[in-house]
Amino acid sequence: MPFQPTPADHFSFGLWTMSWLGRDQFGEATRAPLDPIVAVEKLAELGGWGMTFHDDDLIPFGSDAATRDRIIADFRAALDRTGIAVPMVTTNLFSHPVFKDGGLTSNDRGVRRFALRKVLRNVDLAADLGAETFVMWGGREGSEYDGSKDLSAVFDRYREGIDLVAAYIKDQGYGLKIALEPKPNEPRGDILLPTVGHALAFIATLEHGDIVGVNPETGHEQMAGLNYTHGIAQALWAGKLFHIDLNGQRSIKFDQDLVFGHGDLLSAFFTVDLVENGFPGGGPRYDGPRHFDYKPSRTEDYDGVWDSVTANMRTYLILKERALAFRADPEVQEALATSGVAELARPTLADGESTADLLADTASFETFDADKAGERGYAFVRLNQLAVEHALGAR
Amino acid sequence: MPFQPTPADHFSFGLWTMSWLGRDQFGEATRAPLDPIVAVEKLAELGGWGMTFHDDDLIPFGSDAATRDRIIADFRAALDRTGIAVPMVTTNLFSHPVFKDGGLTSNDRGVRRFALRKVLRNVDLAADLGAETFVMWGGREGSEYDGSKDLSAVFDRYREGIDLVAAYIKDQGYGLKIALEPKPNEPRGDILLPTVGHALAFIATLEHGDIVGVNPETGHEQMAGLNYTHGIAQALWAGKLFHIDLNGQRSIKFDQDLVFGHGDLLSAFFTVDLVENGFPGGGPRYDGPRHFDYKPSRTEDYDGVWDSVTANMRTYLILKERALAFRADPEVQEALATSGVAELARPTLADGESTADLLADTASFETFDADKAGERGYAFVRLNQLAVEHALGAR
Amino acid sequence: MPFQPTPADHFSFGLWTMSWLGRDQFGEATRAPLDPIVAVEKLAELGGWGMTFHDDDLIPFGSDAATRDRIIADFRAALDRTGIAVPMVTTNLFSHPVFKDGGLTSNDRGVRRFALRKVLRNVDLAADLGAETFVMWGGREGSEYDGSKDLSAVFDRYREGIDLVAAYIKDQGYGLKIALEPKPNEPRGDILLPTVGHALAFIATLEHGDIVGVNPETGHEQMAGLNYTHGIAQALWAGKLFHIDLNGQRSIKFDQDLVFGHGDLLSAFFTVDLVENGFPGGGPRYDGPRHFDYKPSRTEDYDGVWDSVTANMRTYLILKERALAFRADPEVQEALATSGVAELARPTLADGESTADLLADTASFETFDADKAGERGYAFVRLNQLAVEHALGAR
Amino acid sequence: MPFQPTPADHFSFGLWTMSWLGRDQFGEATRAPLDPIVAVEKLAELGGWGMTFHDDDLIPFGSDAATRDRIIADFRAALDRTGIAVPMVTTNLFSHPVFKDGGLTSNDRGVRRFALRKVLRNVDLAADLGAETFVMWGGREGSEYDGSKDLSAVFDRYREGIDLVAAYIKDQGYGLKIALEPKPNEPRGDILLPTVGHALAFIATLEHGDIVGVNPETGHEQMAGLNYTHGIAQALWAGKLFHIDLNGQRSIKFDQDLVFGHGDLLSAFFTVDLVENGFPGGGPRYDGPRHFDYKPSRTEDYDGVWDSVTANMRTYLILKERALAFRADPEVQEALATSGVAELARPTLADGESTADLLADTASFETFDADKAGERGYAFVRLNQLAVEHALGAR
Repeated sequence: MPFQPTPADHFSFGLWTMSWLGRDQFGEATRAPLDPIVAVEKLAELGGWGMTFHDDDLIPFGSDAATRDRIIADFRAALDRTGIAVPMVTTNLFSHPVFKDGGLTSNDRGVRRFALRKVLRNVDLAADLGAETFVMWGGREGSEYDGSKDLSAVFDRYREGIDLVAAYIKDQGYGLKIALEPKPNEPRGDILLPTVGHALAFIATLEHGDIVGVNPETGHEQMAGLNYTHGIAQALWAGKLFHIDLNGQRSIKFDQDLVFGHGDLLSAFFTVDLVENGFPGGGPRYDGPRHFDYKPSRTEDYDGVWDSVTANMRTYLILKERALAFRADPEVQEALATSGVAELARPTLADGESTADLLADTASFETFDADKAGERGYAFVRLNQLAVEHALGAR
Repeated sequence: MPFQPTPADHFSFGLWTMSWLGRDQFGEATRAPLDPIVAVEKLAELGGWGMTFHDDDLIPFGSDAATRDRIIADFRAALDRTGIAVPMVTTNLFSHPVFKDGGLTSNDRGVRRFALRKVLRNVDLAADLGAETFVMWGGREGSEYDGSKDLSAVFDRYREGIDLVAAYIKDQGYGLKIALEPKPNEPRGDILLPTVGHALAFIATLEHGDIVGVNPETGHEQMAGLNYTHGIAQALWAGKLFHIDLNGQRSIKFDQDLVFGHGDLLSAFFTVDLVENGFPGGGPRYDGPRHFDYKPSRTEDYDGVWDSVTANMRTYLILKERALAFRADPEVQEALATSGVAELARPTLADGESTADLLADTASFETFDADKAGERGYAFVRLNQLAVEHALGAR
Repeated sequence: MPFQPTPADHFSFGLWTMSWLGRDQFGEATRAPLDPIVAVEKLAELGGWGMTFHDDDLIPFGSDAATRDRIIADFRAALDRTGIAVPMVTTNLFSHPVFKDGGLTSNDRGVRRFALRKVLRNVDLAADLGAETFVMWGGREGSEYDGSKDLSAVFDRYREGIDLVAAYIKDQGYGLKIALEPKPNEPRGDILLPTVGHALAFIATLEHGDIVGVNPETGHEQMAGLNYTHGIAQALWAGKLFHIDLNGQRSIKFDQDLVFGHGDLLSAFFTVDLVENGFPGGGPRYDGPRHFDYKPSRTEDYDGVWDSVTANMRTYLILKERALAFRADPEVQEALATSGVAELARPTLADGESTADLLADTASFETFDADKAGERGYAFVRLNQLAVEHALGAR
Repeated sequence: MPFQPTPADHFSFGLWTMSWLGRDQFGEATRAPLDPIVAVEKLAELGGWGMTFHDDDLIPFGSDAATRDRIIADFRAALDRTGIAVPMVTTNLFSHPVFKDGGLTSNDRGVRRFALRKVLRNVDLAADLGAETFVMWGGREGSEYDGSKDLSAVFDRYREGIDLVAAYIKDQGYGLKIALEPKPNEPRGDILLPTVGHALAFIATLEHGDIVGVNPETGHEQMAGLNYTHGIAQALWAGKLFHIDLNGQRSIKFDQDLVFGHGDLLSAFFTVDLVENGFPGGGPRYDGPRHFDYKPSRTEDYDGVWDSVTANMRTYLILKERALAFRADPEVQEALATSGVAELARPTLADGESTADLLADTASFETFDADKAGERGYAFVRLNQLAVEHALGAR
């Protein structure tokens, strides 16, 4: 059967995705709770490879030590039994009321200290389970009102917190990297580090930024009208694409968390093209998990939940097949050349050319025929139509 | 007369703002061309302080050397006569067809070299006129289609270009700083460096990034649904807020370039509050020009143009008065304290406290009553209502 | 004390606003439940006039008849005691899982029948409590996926449902009018009747549309980037503005339900200007309740809740004072005339002029100097600046 | 060759699409003018069927009568020679400065009269050329500032204008219908009749609304974040879908006018599905032209222009093949049944059932098990995945 996922595809899912009960801003849960063990077993059965989780997804907030230990032991046993990996772990600093003004940047110092402790405890667990990435989504780090934060102090505190966690990871000798997950808004009116760019910029100010990168989510960038593939490309180029969250979003609105490909399908094609084929001219590659962070629609029962898990993986595999064929098509290669895509890899200055040389090169300016050069047809529409037709399986 | 602008207010305007003829995507020019000399004189008369420009605003593209020299001489004479400063200069890499796929990142190498030469020539002029800031808006650096760019090479070329310009500025001993101006889209479908964050992240990768910062424009951030005041705050915090472009935008749509305050008025209040009062707990301050980058509506004749110039400055001065009163109000100070705004400036770890100490502090976690702490009322709505009422002059 | 609300101001609030517990998509409730009786008493104390509610706000879903009767009796007693009116009632067809695919347009016919029964029962209660308006927000009537609805049948069912309810109201002789509340999305990916326009268009197809109008909410229109004041104006002009929901929203994102004026403040000024002053040239007026449908931020305790209730009313009263002064200002009247605002009320054809007459009038076309007419300056920026300065209390 | 367009496909294009010179808000024209005769010939060669135009596209504004006659004669000859039809004509009330505050709703009465005359003259031409549809896009009917329009008078004038044109069409015995084209913004800050819904609602107030319908454009609805297929479905259901404008848009931003399918590809699939297959349960069908209103990207030369013309048609034909296969797939039919899509066509009340009967049916409410009914899984994700896989040609 074509498009059948296998562990070799490195598909991972958040435990919170399949166990989302359908409770939303305007309605009650529509599904009964899901046992994490069942989730692990079902994921293995469907061809998945990895399971990720927030601490509170697995271990209810406030559980005592014995309960916590028992839950973890059972979970670990299920992992061993099924071969499901835990490539990433993350901490919930957003559900409990204590975090209503944020965790690491709450105006309340006691909350900030509690948040740090909660994170550190979960870092230990992540390392213990062999995770490679520790995601930090600061969904409550933000504000509704510009006056409610000291917007300099808030970045100081964010930096203090992330640097402390990163230093701890290094001190403990854990093989973990931190990946910050940007989001523009929801649940806060404006979230700090709203886009991939803001997160990368922030990371550049850290003392321990070498082990801190980003975990961009398709829908989060699209909620700001931004191009997701551009976003992960800038992160890759900066050496900071540590993890990805794939899902679907339809335009600028609330966070939909649809199945991958059920949002902007053409953008999804180019995302897969970049992840699977890399940049046309080479350069850094992403080789981490293909992680899905989505929500099975509230209208679904558990049959629908499992169908949605499969849907993410199948869509990815179909688009992967299409993207490989796209790049392998000689007509596409010719079109890329015509459009000057390869030409962009050539430095603007010649090897060894200095700025003085450039200034002395009259062909570059004094005798350059701008009007003539402006007539060049880049043939981008043709190139894009080739992509569309490959995506649609029509070539 | 209250709210009368004077040069001490450091209000500057783009020459392209008042000389915009009203030609838009769907219609022809509605105003006759404006002589730059008249613009300078009128700006002085209205209480302005500085005039900024793109090379092509002042000197038509393709002018011969003699024409160029004469235009510059006349312009300089008008500046001397009126006392109007030129605090910032910028280069047009977007109007001529040659730049239809970008300037520094065009797929065509010849275009990239031409673009660099055009920029360097304008850097010389900027330095000669005593400008302190050289703005670079890469409005055509981007794409409509994800496949039409090598998204790694494109950042390589962008970095090559900006670093070359920055190095040239240093080599020449010019007192200029570069300010990159982000924008999410329009005229390209997706512009590179779409937000303040992406630009800051890119700057962190430059060799000569020490003299490169950002020039955030109100409407550009709001076109991505982002909070402008948050954006300039992150830039300030990073030591990179070199210039600002103030204007108005109403929600996520095409670039409106309205008069400052004719867009999101409450956001404008908080922007002025930050620029004039700084962060509540101190920290870096912006002391550059109050620069307006807007377009007088196409429905206006030149009386309307001058009214719109004045409107920008008056709105700013009114909001400045309101912002000063806001911070001076003891009730506001008390509300800020209640909301924990000052508390955020206090580090999360005590002076000298180590991570080990934090882990050993049972009050931070083991005995911390999260439910109790979650009951704290932050009183943010009250604080915001105080801001609204101060903005409205109702207190 | 200025800006002190009184019952004469006709301010009403949803019971669900002040009793929202702060549970959102990503977090648990931050406030303890509020007794509806306390809500009524507190609203009276703060100067409110009316309380509105969904059936389930007051009477928990599934309550038996005796419980229901007791709750209603207690509520009615509180109303009598405080003088608080119930000008509007609405039915919850969105919280219970049974409505996960909608109420009146669920793909499941049994659900549709149940929904109708739930509505009819609540219509009886609304009439019994003396309400004048019965709001119907179809928040779950919609879809995430275009294929999941027969998009012709869905409008047939919506029409069947609304017509049935309207006919029932007439048959019972109730003095109620129905007001449909549009919203573009959230909780569904796309909600049917997404804007004021779609709802008005739908109403025009009803058999009993004479008693059906709209209840536009500020933020709902702004979530589609639409101008709220334009929306209520078109509804007023069509004789269909039966109720309004005032609140605040910051750009296109999830439904924020902020305090009125804490979103787009300048738009709020023009909304109040229209509600309080009517159209400049006369025409239909809105004289219904000034109803607030907002959510007290999740960061607030009950002190903050009551502050937020007051904030809505105070902002409205401040803007009302400003709007009255705006219209009364002779300079504004002169500016309105200059801008041709009054001229628009004059029909394009003269009294008694036929199309043939127009075609024969050479001054209208053959000798009309379009270039000359195109030079007219409409002075809209000046007019808008006058509005901004009045809003800011700076004139 | 598969996906080869022929006249039988009824593909039409605006003359303004292929002759757009690439002049945008920030840049000059990148292509030389295109002779309309060449456009007609080229369209025929590429397999197109119809050519539409604004008066000024064909006949420059202000041409004298002799020039006008000659241009029309030459155009008509080209049509005859090629067999290209003119199914639709429209009037430009937006490019000339005289229309800067609108045409039919300008604050200036002289402009309104001139606009009407310009429209009437073009109605004559449309009828003469055998067009069936007369599109009216009111791109300048709107405002930037809420105070600059009397928002009741503006609808009076709009109604007066449209009714006058419709009455003229009837009086002349022309076989034309009017189709209003909604757009939310750009070039005005807020355009009147911003969505399909607002236009339909307005039409319902007309005296001659029987010959007035809508011409929804893909990107225009998507610029407000609205679902285009939902929009045309509501128009079809109301009997008012007189024409369609197909193109591509990527999220909420400026009007991109991309090739059909180069925007939201999955939405395009469902649009074609509705146009070609109709509603699942039958009902009104659209049988008008498949009209493309897009802009060949500014980066293209004329080879790229012709490639883009072909791209629109090919994408449509591919999606048509996919949509036919989707509906013909037995698994899809089964999935539609499982999801209750057909069930929605069944009236909520039984044949002959009265409201009293419903109230008496205890199974509908008193004994209805809402919790149980809430457990139904609608399997919408599975159904959507089937659509995605059919769209991608993967089944």
